[in-house]
Amino acid sequence: MSEQHIATAFDRDLEAIQARIMKMGGLVEAAISDSARSLETRDEELAEQVRAGDAAIDGLEELINEETARLIALRAPTAVDLRVVLSVMKISGNLERIGDYSKNIAKRTGVLTQLRPVNSSTAALRRMAREVELMLKDALDAYIQRDPELARDVIGRDHEVDQMYNALFREFLTFMMEDPRNITACMHLHFIAKNIERMGDHVTGIAEQVVYLVTGERPDEARSKADTTSSSVVEG
Amino acid sequence: MSEQHIATAFDRDLEAIQARIMKMGGLVEAAISDSARSLETRDEELAEQVRAGDAAIDGLEELINEETARLIALRAPTAVDLRVVLSVMKISGNLERIGDYSKNIAKRTGVLTQLRPVNSSTAALRRMAREVELMLKDALDAYIQRDPELARDVIGRDHEVDQMYNALFREFLTFMMEDPRNITACMHLHFIAKNIERMGDHVTGIAEQVVYLVTGERPDEARSKADTTSSSVVEG
Repeated sequence: MSEQHIATAFDRDLEAIQARIMKMGGLVEAAISDSARSLETRDEELAEQVRAGDAAIDGLEELINEETARLIALRAPTAVDLRVVLSVMKISGNLERIGDYSKNIAKRTGVLTQLRPVNSSTAALRRMAREVELMLKDALDAYIQRDPELARDVIGRDHEVDQMYNALFREFLTFMMEDPRNITACMHLHFIAKNIERMGDHVTGIAEQVVYLVTGERPDEARSKADTTSSSVVEG
Repeated sequence: MSEQHIATAFDRDLEAIQARIMKMGGLVEAAISDSARSLETRDEELAEQVRAGDAAIDGLEELINEETARLIALRAPTAVDLRVVLSVMKISGNLERIGDYSKNIAKRTGVLTQLRPVNSSTAALRRMAREVELMLKDALDAYIQRDPELARDVIGRDHEVDQMYNALFREFLTFMMEDPRNITACMHLHFIAKNIERMGDHVTGIAEQVVYLVTGERPDEARSKADTTSSSVVEG
């Protein structure tokens, strides 16, 4: 009877924290999408909203950290319950980082609007950001539904994001060599591409937590690192 | 009596985990230093050692994660004890990221040795890496000694690393504009500079955990973000 009571109290607390994770996830999805859109449409007002909105994401992470610590202290969860609580902390950490990257992208929008546009790069960046946003949505769905198959699907899709990044890296090098007046803009655009690629890594981190949570396996051992640009040589 | 027994068992477990953190810290300090040295001396063998050595750092993080989870489950720590355990997890997460950045730097060494050297940039990068390495050493000392003053000192020094990064960013833009044959090398060097700057952020994260652990204050609210390159415009 008392056992039952404790389990219920734990579940109730955990549900409240998971609701915050979902709220945080919604804010982060919007930040990804808005930062990429502000870049493509050169909308400085929207970029400013993304920058200002990051504080709410950080605040939620802090709240989740406090609430999970309180949950551990109060309910002393063990085994699977403890694994769930610790994964919640990791997931909120990943979400916070993705929010940070969105803010960084929004910061660069202000600079890029002062420079002449570089071909169709911002549209390609928006497509890349869109892919990451969809992956995040699926990773969070996989978490709520405890669906390891969906989570593995998300992990597999990170490879495509890495490919998009590799293609953009080579494109930016070419633009810079063709015309040195593109150099400053391309340095910033390249940073943005790298930020989106890193967002993909953090979404993958969330999906890996889901697989671990449900199956006890750690899929990250097998994760392929497909950013090959660290060994790219394009001769100038 | 029983209370005393539990406290001692907790302390003993915690000490074992902290010993692992120190071991991990030592490996990460060496990775920072070796990756920067391999870059400056064009030593591909040393770079390969750094790349291969990252697995040991990752393994320690996983072990620390498992042991802290077991510690929480077995000893059910509360209040300050719980705060210590959770901060151990965060610190090992930060160390793992710094190890990753070192590995990324080492990966680029192989590419850069195929390209002609760009001025004195690698010496500047080594100095920047050296500063981060010293900060890490102090952050870990501050953790072991529970010294918030030393931790705050580390947080303050991150500003210098950011300044070094800003200066290098402008330098690389200039080199690329002066001679397009520098573009590929400078893109890689710039990445390395950004990686070192991010390492500094993670060391700051460790120092912030120390301040929080000892004082209960969160110093990150006031942390100044001194990477100003996101708003740098250098006209080509």
